[in-house]
Amino acid sequence: MTQTELAIIGLGKIARDQHVPALAASPAFTLAATVDPVSRREDVPAFTNISTFLAQMPEVGAVSLCTPPQVRFAVAREALLAGRHVLLEKPPGTTVSEVMTLERIARDQGRTLFTAWHSQFAPGIPAARDWLAPRRITAITVTWREDVRRWHPGQDWIFEPGGTGVFDPGINAYSVLTAILPVALYTTGGTLEVPANRETPIAAQLTMRTEEGAPVDLDFDFRETGTQTWDMLIRTDQGDLALSQGGARIVADGALISDEGALAGEYDRIYARFAELIAKGESDVDLTPFRHVADAMMLGRHKQTDAFAW
Amino acid sequence: MTQTELAIIGLGKIARDQHVPALAASPAFTLAATVDPVSRREDVPAFTNISTFLAQMPEVGAVSLCTPPQVRFAVAREALLAGRHVLLEKPPGTTVSEVMTLERIARDQGRTLFTAWHSQFAPGIPAARDWLAPRRITAITVTWREDVRRWHPGQDWIFEPGGTGVFDPGINAYSVLTAILPVALYTTGGTLEVPANRETPIAAQLTMRTEEGAPVDLDFDFRETGTQTWDMLIRTDQGDLALSQGGARIVADGALISDEGALAGEYDRIYARFAELIAKGESDVDLTPFRHVADAMMLGRHKQTDAFAW
Repeated sequence: MTQTELAIIGLGKIARDQHVPALAASPAFTLAATVDPVSRREDVPAFTNISTFLAQMPEVGAVSLCTPPQVRFAVAREALLAGRHVLLEKPPGTTVSEVMTLERIARDQGRTLFTAWHSQFAPGIPAARDWLAPRRITAITVTWREDVRRWHPGQDWIFEPGGTGVFDPGINAYSVLTAILPVALYTTGGTLEVPANRETPIAAQLTMRTEEGAPVDLDFDFRETGTQTWDMLIRTDQGDLALSQGGARIVADGALISDEGALAGEYDRIYARFAELIAKGESDVDLTPFRHVADAMMLGRHKQTDAFAW
Repeated sequence: MTQTELAIIGLGKIARDQHVPALAASPAFTLAATVDPVSRREDVPAFTNISTFLAQMPEVGAVSLCTPPQVRFAVAREALLAGRHVLLEKPPGTTVSEVMTLERIARDQGRTLFTAWHSQFAPGIPAARDWLAPRRITAITVTWREDVRRWHPGQDWIFEPGGTGVFDPGINAYSVLTAILPVALYTTGGTLEVPANRETPIAAQLTMRTEEGAPVDLDFDFRETGTQTWDMLIRTDQGDLALSQGGARIVADGALISDEGALAGEYDRIYARFAELIAKGESDVDLTPFRHVADAMMLGRHKQTDAFAW
């Protein structure tokens, strides 16, 4: 199999923790360069500027964008217009409109654009979707509580406009929900707790409904220093499904139907999917999770809370 | 021509000022009922409850939803599921996801759903679009300043979550922009001024860019007690276009290309379009203006401002 050369743009925590190892194991891709204003690796060419990279390495056919979302659009647009396939880490941008514009540019250029929602590649997702498909949802509770200092140390961009605050992990919950539920959801209200010295929520309590009216309660919190929780409980007319560890472990009607380590293989499957899309000449742009964030930000009541410092 | 019987749901200011006269003049529709918890007319049956209306008047084939947006989704869903064609006054709901769900239900039901952006039916819109089509946009300024006490007296829902505050008129500016520009826009930032005692912005200063990077500055203000202004200036590589009175008056390259009264004929054209969609068995669901509001609410910095009282 001929490997596609790929560059990582934005060599931060998620790139080092997940993308680099997944690329090292990928039969489809090989890491050919990095682009980052400060970070670099010694084993591949390092650029500090996207334009220079695009001009000097035309043989690199694909890029993975792992930068903070605030600079994503301009870089992705430039890469697509230069004929590269583009994988967007989550969240795919700062606004839904940006990503829709990228989708159109990718189509015009005949290149692949892939919004990689890593939680949709969690090991238990297919089993959960299959189990839920024939059932009627009656109620859902989502608890997504983690310690921002542990998972995003010093990442101030999270609390800047476009960083979405606690929706940075919360969007993973949305991406799981929309991947496994047989019905559409919409937001009905909620509270957004914004630190006095920051711009985006550090916690959010939200209500949604399924299209048929079943209640959905979501509890997102970035201040959880105890047990880290990425759980949902989905009640149906024929038993309940409990998802934990962000989608790794699934118990349905009391029986364990999936139990692998959290994040196991997520990024391997993401790169396999990216290779498949490129081979087929297709894009995969799923905007639903991001739209739920935008809807929550539009409908939520702002409530000022304690100033936040790292 | 056989007229379609139509019910107005939500007999408030916009229904009385615009929908009732437009229906009286329409060759395609006739007002057959109203549904409103308090208001009524003497000339047609009046209901206080949507379910009762749907059950008792199956011959009424279409409804216009003029309620505040917070109750729009449930009512529209019920009407579509009961086989009625639905016109949604702007804004079409409280979240983009809601309206996308309605779009799917309309498709499943084989009924027409129409998001009626009245400003897109302003008299100067076609001339502006044609004039701009071959030109390259270099800069845009939008000034949308009106007195909320004059245009929305006592309408507290505007300042409740889902009411969108100053975006209620601002969305008209977005709907004009997206109707006349040959390029996509996306929001890059801004400030949202929220009264200390309210939930939604009373003013907003926003920046957008065209896809090609041209700057777009928007000034939305609900506190304008002086001259009411609904203007935009669009600079291009071949002259400028000035739109005023919300799209009624257009001056392009110094020449007047459209000058009719503000709102002249907007609702007549809306109902003609609704009739055309029903005849063709199509829907027209344009979510772009609403998505720009959601993007602005997601990206804007909140700034507390003076408490607001009517």
